[in-house]
Amino acid sequence: MLKTEAKIRVRFSETDAMGVVYHANYLPWFEVARTQLLAELGMPYRELQDNGFLLPVLEVSVKYRVPAHFGDDIVVRAMMKEMPRVKIKIEYEVLRGDEVLTTGMTLHAFMNRDSQAIRPPKFFTETIEKAFRDNAANGTVAANV
Amino acid sequence: MLKTEAKIRVRFSETDAMGVVYHANYLPWFEVARTQLLAELGMPYRELQDNGFLLPVLEVSVKYRVPAHFGDDIVVRAMMKEMPRVKIKIEYEVLRGDEVLTTGMTLHAFMNRDSQAIRPPKFFTETIEKAFRDNAANGTVAANV
Amino acid sequence: MLKTEAKIRVRFSETDAMGVVYHANYLPWFEVARTQLLAELGMPYRELQDNGFLLPVLEVSVKYRVPAHFGDDIVVRAMMKEMPRVKIKIEYEVLRGDEVLTTGMTLHAFMNRDSQAIRPPKFFTETIEKAFRDNAANGTVAANV
Amino acid sequence: MLKTEAKIRVRFSETDAMGVVYHANYLPWFEVARTQLLAELGMPYRELQDNGFLLPVLEVSVKYRVPAHFGDDIVVRAMMKEMPRVKIKIEYEVLRGDEVLTTGMTLHAFMNRDSQAIRPPKFFTETIEKAFRDNAANGTVAANV
Repeated sequence: MLKTEAKIRVRFSETDAMGVVYHANYLPWFEVARTQLLAELGMPYRELQDNGFLLPVLEVSVKYRVPAHFGDDIVVRAMMKEMPRVKIKIEYEVLRGDEVLTTGMTLHAFMNRDSQAIRPPKFFTETIEKAFRDNAANGTVAANV
Repeated sequence: MLKTEAKIRVRFSETDAMGVVYHANYLPWFEVARTQLLAELGMPYRELQDNGFLLPVLEVSVKYRVPAHFGDDIVVRAMMKEMPRVKIKIEYEVLRGDEVLTTGMTLHAFMNRDSQAIRPPKFFTETIEKAFRDNAANGTVAANV
Repeated sequence: MLKTEAKIRVRFSETDAMGVVYHANYLPWFEVARTQLLAELGMPYRELQDNGFLLPVLEVSVKYRVPAHFGDDIVVRAMMKEMPRVKIKIEYEVLRGDEVLTTGMTLHAFMNRDSQAIRPPKFFTETIEKAFRDNAANGTVAANV
Repeated sequence: MLKTEAKIRVRFSETDAMGVVYHANYLPWFEVARTQLLAELGMPYRELQDNGFLLPVLEVSVKYRVPAHFGDDIVVRAMMKEMPRVKIKIEYEVLRGDEVLTTGMTLHAFMNRDSQAIRPPKFFTETIEKAFRDNAANGTVAANV
């Protein structure tokens, strides 16, 4: 498993009139953690994009257990549990201390600038494979958590 | 099945640097349609809230098929397919003309102002039951689509 | 003066933990009304963009008088009071019934896709000039309010 | 002058179809820096709120000079240049390295939970006065930059 943990402090703009974080606002947090995971693997999402490899979201699901509030210090854990083939699945846990507030999943596939589905670029596949191998060898995660 | 259709024109603020609607921004659209469904059934969400009945999102899932763009005229269909018991499931289709861009689901339960799960209020259950009965009798939807 | 009025119903996603519309969320509303004003003048913003004419925001200012709430039916009035030269100034009023909730202003200039400031395209200037002339002749607004 | 600097990495969700940060999304950044300034002065905004002292935005203005992009590392500087009396003015600079991307201002006043304007609470005034005095004595800022 490849994983990382992104730190986020809840912004007032992320709350709603129920006094808690608005449910849609967890998705940008997932993305912050996902972006950090790719960067730590040596493939910043911005570079992927600059090279014409887009990675749109195909599916998302979220389970909300405990609400987050303005000012909370949150950890968003992004995990790639299996070697991706065509589709790339990332799972998430949103934590406040030891408490799991929210869990989720996003599914992705590579796309070119003409919005056509493409295979993952070779350097992506090789990088991920190497990270999983190192992972297995070391018993540790590849991304620098 | 109870259903409604909300009309939405895509705002520039809802797009992202891929030139399409940002994936998280479908959730507020689902909510617009859900709010309209409740209002058409005679239970505006604002009144529910004012009476202490909150209806938070427990789960959400979305499948993205075709992207939406700035200026698109969109229809968001919200559907309650089954009589809710403790949990209330609403399904969604986002359409541009005849094309289904996105589908999704949200799951809800009633909560009081102290964040405790509560049973659906009686008038809610009765209203929904009546709408489903009328529906069955008429072969038409209860909400005014 | 060229003007239009856009109708908006406040979304739950636009509220914050003070129970009112979050202050940043008036800017997308201004844009909805600005977009409608350009469309009514026969120059949809999307067409301007597709032809390489971007119209970024250079300045914005807002005064908040009375808060808006979830479910409110709002009118956003966009007004071009003077013939624009290089810069284009648009003023706004956000109304709930007769009550002015918010006023604001945005300042714009044309830019090409290389982010260089450019003069307004000729068809833009001619369209606006004609609208102001018709306006003066008729004593009415050009945009279809 | 009291000031602080908040660090922000631009999220993909903050961009728009022009490929840059959407203009409204600077306002939540101002708030992040403003919240940090209050916290560093010993008056976390959350505590103010919990004690019934709300600090809504009365006015905002922003000048956009240079756009920010996804992944940029940004510093948002919040500055209280004058001792506030009834109204509290905060000024902002958004920087990428040495480059000033955006400047802005927000104006605030205290309000109670019944939405009535109230004088700043005594501990607020005393804390700010002390910070400005220390500032003058030391020739340094009070907040921990």
